[in-house]
Amino acid sequence: MTHVFDEAIAVTSVDDAAEYTVRATTHPAYNNMVGPFGGVTAATVVNAIQRHPEVLGDPLALTINYTAPIGEGQWDLPVTAVRTNRTNQHWVFRIEQNDQIVATGTAVFGVRRDTWSDVEAERPQAAAAESVSASDYGDFIEWAKHYDKRFVTGGLDLGQSADSTSTLWLRDHPERDIDFPALTAMSDVFYPRVFLRRGTYLPAGTISLTTYFHATAEELAEQGSTHVLATARAARFGHGHFDQYGQIWGGEALLATTHQLVYYKDPA
Amino acid sequence: MTHVFDEAIAVTSVDDAAEYTVRATTHPAYNNMVGPFGGVTAATVVNAIQRHPEVLGDPLALTINYTAPIGEGQWDLPVTAVRTNRTNQHWVFRIEQNDQIVATGTAVFGVRRDTWSDVEAERPQAAAAESVSASDYGDFIEWAKHYDKRFVTGGLDLGQSADSTSTLWLRDHPERDIDFPALTAMSDVFYPRVFLRRGTYLPAGTISLTTYFHATAEELAEQGSTHVLATARAARFGHGHFDQYGQIWGGEALLATTHQLVYYKDPA
Repeated sequence: MTHVFDEAIAVTSVDDAAEYTVRATTHPAYNNMVGPFGGVTAATVVNAIQRHPEVLGDPLALTINYTAPIGEGQWDLPVTAVRTNRTNQHWVFRIEQNDQIVATGTAVFGVRRDTWSDVEAERPQAAAAESVSASDYGDFIEWAKHYDKRFVTGGLDLGQSADSTSTLWLRDHPERDIDFPALTAMSDVFYPRVFLRRGTYLPAGTISLTTYFHATAEELAEQGSTHVLATARAARFGHGHFDQYGQIWGGEALLATTHQLVYYKDPA
Repeated sequence: MTHVFDEAIAVTSVDDAAEYTVRATTHPAYNNMVGPFGGVTAATVVNAIQRHPEVLGDPLALTINYTAPIGEGQWDLPVTAVRTNRTNQHWVFRIEQNDQIVATGTAVFGVRRDTWSDVEAERPQAAAAESVSASDYGDFIEWAKHYDKRFVTGGLDLGQSADSTSTLWLRDHPERDIDFPALTAMSDVFYPRVFLRRGTYLPAGTISLTTYFHATAEELAEQGSTHVLATARAARFGHGHFDQYGQIWGGEALLATTHQLVYYKDPA
């Protein structure tokens, strides 16, 4: 049986396009308040590049800029390998819908080599996932129902907090073995940090998301469908924008680091 | 008198190009071991977009992927505003030299609005800049001679350290009032974190750099040419790549956060 996430990130080839182009369709299971969950859009890009006949290795970096709202329905994704080096490959892409560019971005894929290695960052302290209760983002956030989210700190109960950190156990719901598209989507799973600081919902949305993939395919296979530990916080809020830096851990392995710029409205 | 940094980021328009294109030239004062200092390349992109006749506001985000070595001499920079919204504007660009694409990227510019604001991150502890001695990156790193760098921790004396953090006072040398291009270049001023962990020089280079600009133009004007405090560390080293997360502080203001993916060679 196909997992709903795989339905959501599915792409078909557009044969008559001037560039290598695939087509995707927004999936109601991953709708946000307006348009699709940006994490699934990003995951679809990773899925599309992974299926490109000339892809080299696995994802190393992805940046996606959300330039305009994506409406429900089909969208087209031209992806181009602008440069293939010995160990890495550089991609550019854009997302088009109704003759508008609704997202742009770049990706780096590459080959992983054996080198000296170390996980220097420390994994946040967290009680075992089984001992933490699951919570939801509310009835209107359809996509969030497709993640099992267990907040260790910084949940959406929204007391006004001086600390924008959220740390949560996370896995797809229903369960699904993690892979690079799933990890991509998970890097955008945090609700806007400004909610936590202000103790209330506000208009907010991701403008730009960058994720670095530290995980090897073997580490992801080992992780299977067990919970990852995801953590994120902001450094500065001001003038309608804040940043968010996050990490996604699978056991003792740091699977991904992620950085995003978020728009918000909260008149002074 | 023109500052050497302004010479290095200068652009001229290429009138016969199909797209809006400017031309830049590498400057010997900002040469790296091979090719130019990536921070100055990124700064040139910001400079070029700022001078575009239809630019909206100030830089909010920049991602640049270094796809191939840039040789000394001229390079061309087509920049396109793919989408202008009410408060932000999305750009894509690429750098071409000898008919090859040597860099790609995206940028977001925008208008800053008055909102609730807070600097949540804490500035690293540091003795006053005047009490810290300046150090250099060595004779072969020409660009580094054009920064006054005073390491509070994690200097290039290269004892093997368990902590990849470097924190330094930083300003242009000779002094120059900070602006968005200067801040862009400063976000790439850290030497590769792997040197600090391994206690030795290794082949290493930035693949992808993302910088978020939190500073307002007013804050930069207030900063003038006094030292900023720059800090960076890595979270994971492995399989030929590591990440670096950094912050640049001007007094109590967090001016920028930055994230980069770096390639390195260090056989296990």
